[in-house]
Amino acid sequence: MKKKVNAAILIIGNEILSGRTQDKNVNFISKWLNSSCGITVKEVRIIPDEEKKIIENVLLLSKKFNYVFTTGGIGPTHDDITAKSISRAFKVKYEYHTEAFSILEKYYGKKNFNDGRKKMAKMPKGSKLIYNPSSAAPGFIIKNVLSLPGVPSILNSMIENCKKYLNKGSKIHSNTMNLFTVESNISKKLGLIQKKYKKSLDIGSYPFFRLGKIGVSIVTRSSSKSLLKKVEKDLKDLVLKKNIKILNTNNIN
Amino acid sequence: MKKKVNAAILIIGNEILSGRTQDKNVNFISKWLNSSCGITVKEVRIIPDEEKKIIENVLLLSKKFNYVFTTGGIGPTHDDITAKSISRAFKVKYEYHTEAFSILEKYYGKKNFNDGRKKMAKMPKGSKLIYNPSSAAPGFIIKNVLSLPGVPSILNSMIENCKKYLNKGSKIHSNTMNLFTVESNISKKLGLIQKKYKKSLDIGSYPFFRLGKIGVSIVTRSSSKSLLKKVEKDLKDLVLKKNIKILNTNNIN
Repeated sequence: MKKKVNAAILIIGNEILSGRTQDKNVNFISKWLNSSCGITVKEVRIIPDEEKKIIENVLLLSKKFNYVFTTGGIGPTHDDITAKSISRAFKVKYEYHTEAFSILEKYYGKKNFNDGRKKMAKMPKGSKLIYNPSSAAPGFIIKNVLSLPGVPSILNSMIENCKKYLNKGSKIHSNTMNLFTVESNISKKLGLIQKKYKKSLDIGSYPFFRLGKIGVSIVTRSSSKSLLKKVEKDLKDLVLKKNIKILNTNNIN
Repeated sequence: MKKKVNAAILIIGNEILSGRTQDKNVNFISKWLNSSCGITVKEVRIIPDEEKKIIENVLLLSKKFNYVFTTGGIGPTHDDITAKSISRAFKVKYEYHTEAFSILEKYYGKKNFNDGRKKMAKMPKGSKLIYNPSSAAPGFIIKNVLSLPGVPSILNSMIENCKKYLNKGSKIHSNTMNLFTVESNISKKLGLIQKKYKKSLDIGSYPFFRLGKIGVSIVTRSSSKSLLKKVEKDLKDLVLKKNIKILNTNNIN
């Protein structure tokens, strides 16, 4: 059986904290890590573009979790201070990465390769590159910290290039049952089912409004597909007893 | 001059960490706090439905920031453990709040007021209520921690009822200029403008793709409107010198 592998996400950016920009990277990275790598995201933090905060959080999260993904702050402007701050966190030089420099020089052409663009080739010494198929400027990994850009379309194009640096864990499977009922009608029994399977199962219940009716999605999550099958039976028994209508059941995936 | 007032947001929910649900509450709360209360969100954390994590983070964030907003985990099911965990964090009893109990009893009717629903009236002793105009179950505030539900439509309906508990700060105004250029073309000058105004100004630059062209939004933020006016002039000078096309400028707000 594979071991559990976890990660944290550190979103760096005043624009997310001020509400100017709706973050989409947490959702994308979390889904990808679980479905492609069997890695569970255990904590997310969103912090401003401030060196002290970046250093503090990178050090703490990289100790607590197997991997840390940072997003944002690796562009060409004055507020892009992620690479420099991570260098300081790990007490290594902040310098030009030879390969990154030549990738960017080739992409922009020697004439247009100005200081702002050159800045994007500067990284913590000892970093390895995460290639960027859409806009050239690479991300990087140093120790267990992977740094990606904040623009979702660019981040999304790079994510597969993180894979080779990650140890995979056991995938968490999930099963969703959508019921036409209210949470409080089933809360007691759900609690008992959760108790029965303890830590090997995670049950969540989430209200929804659909087709003009109120419902609840019951989501069960476990690394064991056969356990999810058992729980599905328990849930169907509960539903039958309470005379609740099932809207639909997703297949276990 | 009003003082600076800040806040942290603590999102409690496995469904956000797993990627099942896209969080929308950070964005909504941040915008509302800034525009309606002059309160700046300085940090966000997303954590699982685990008592230990909730206690740890509530204690730490409530010490570091003027206010903490929690979302999620105050419904009727077994995974709704926010109120209980906050009680433990502050070492107060977790018990029925008389007014919350009678609001809920009235809303559901005595016959349908089952254990799950009753659970939603249990809170840390000494809490005050945050009324819920859409689905009755109230949030609560204890010390500087305000607890709201995770369902965005319900949270949104309750937010104005938080206001009476908050000390207002000085509003942060912002000004956006959308330019048809690339970040690296203006990054050096932007850095100089940021340096000139130091901590009283925050400049962010965010790439966009619109009308088939690449552009950059320059967002300036400050508690002083007149400062933003000055900076706007500096930016217009920069744009003129570089022969950059302005797509549009938002009014300072």
